Amino acid sequence: MTKYQQININNKFDKFSDYWSPRIIAEMNDYQFKLVKVQGEFVWHEHSDTDEVFIVIDGKLIIEFRDGRVELKPGEMFIVPKGIEHKPVAQHESKIMIIEPRGVINTGDAGGELTAGNDVWI
Amino acid sequence: MTKYQQININNKFDKFSDYWSPRIIAEMNDYQFKLVKVQGEFVWHEHSDTDEVFIVIDGKLIIEFRDGRVELKPGEMFIVPKGIEHKPVAQHESKIMIIEPRGVINTGDAGGELTAGNDVWI
Repeated sequence: MTKYQQININNKFDKFSDYWSPRIIAEMNDYQFKLVKVQGEFVWHEHSDTDEVFIVIDGKLIIEFRDGRVELKPGEMFIVPKGIEHKPVAQHESKIMIIEPRGVINTGDAGGELTAGNDVWI
Repeated sequence: MTKYQQININNKFDKFSDYWSPRIIAEMNDYQFKLVKVQGEFVWHEHSDTDEVFIVIDGKLIIEFRDGRVELKPGEMFIVPKGIEHKPVAQHESKIMIIEPRGVINTGDAGGELTAGNDVWI
């Protein structure tokens, strides 16, 4: 019998503690499922070539836009359209799942010190 | 100000009750996020062109393979590789999120009476 192994999202979150540094847990075709812990304010940035999915697993995530904002609680999701500037913010530590194509950089066009390695698996 | 609207996954599940009939709640590029309620046994089938993601929101999902199986609880996920025959099974009503490219038919190559419309939004 082949061993098929499920992925437990919360168990994966126990494996790291730093903020704004996505870890990859799975790939579907050329898309990746990433977990990230967030706290504080990220940088304004955009991804010119792709939409980006945020699903809140624990805590609360605010995504600010130049002309509005959205607040996500656990079990809520939002898809940031490609080319739209956004800034994720979390008042308290929160756990987020991100889904986007392989190779997307977390800071998009902005770069800077919060730019994380983009192919780190756990 | 633009109105940005989050998607609440559980609220979307309250909007339908039939089994094995996926509803679309969001699109990321050419991929779709679908919710489906399941109970009982689905049919053996495969998707020859794409991987398929299953995330359990509530209940329990068993995915049978010809040479094994995987059991998923809430907060667990599994990616069925393309071309691999599988049969989803749930003893009790369970709530599942599926992620796959736009246009994928739920019964894959198998067809039959459980084939659902493939672009039904809620």
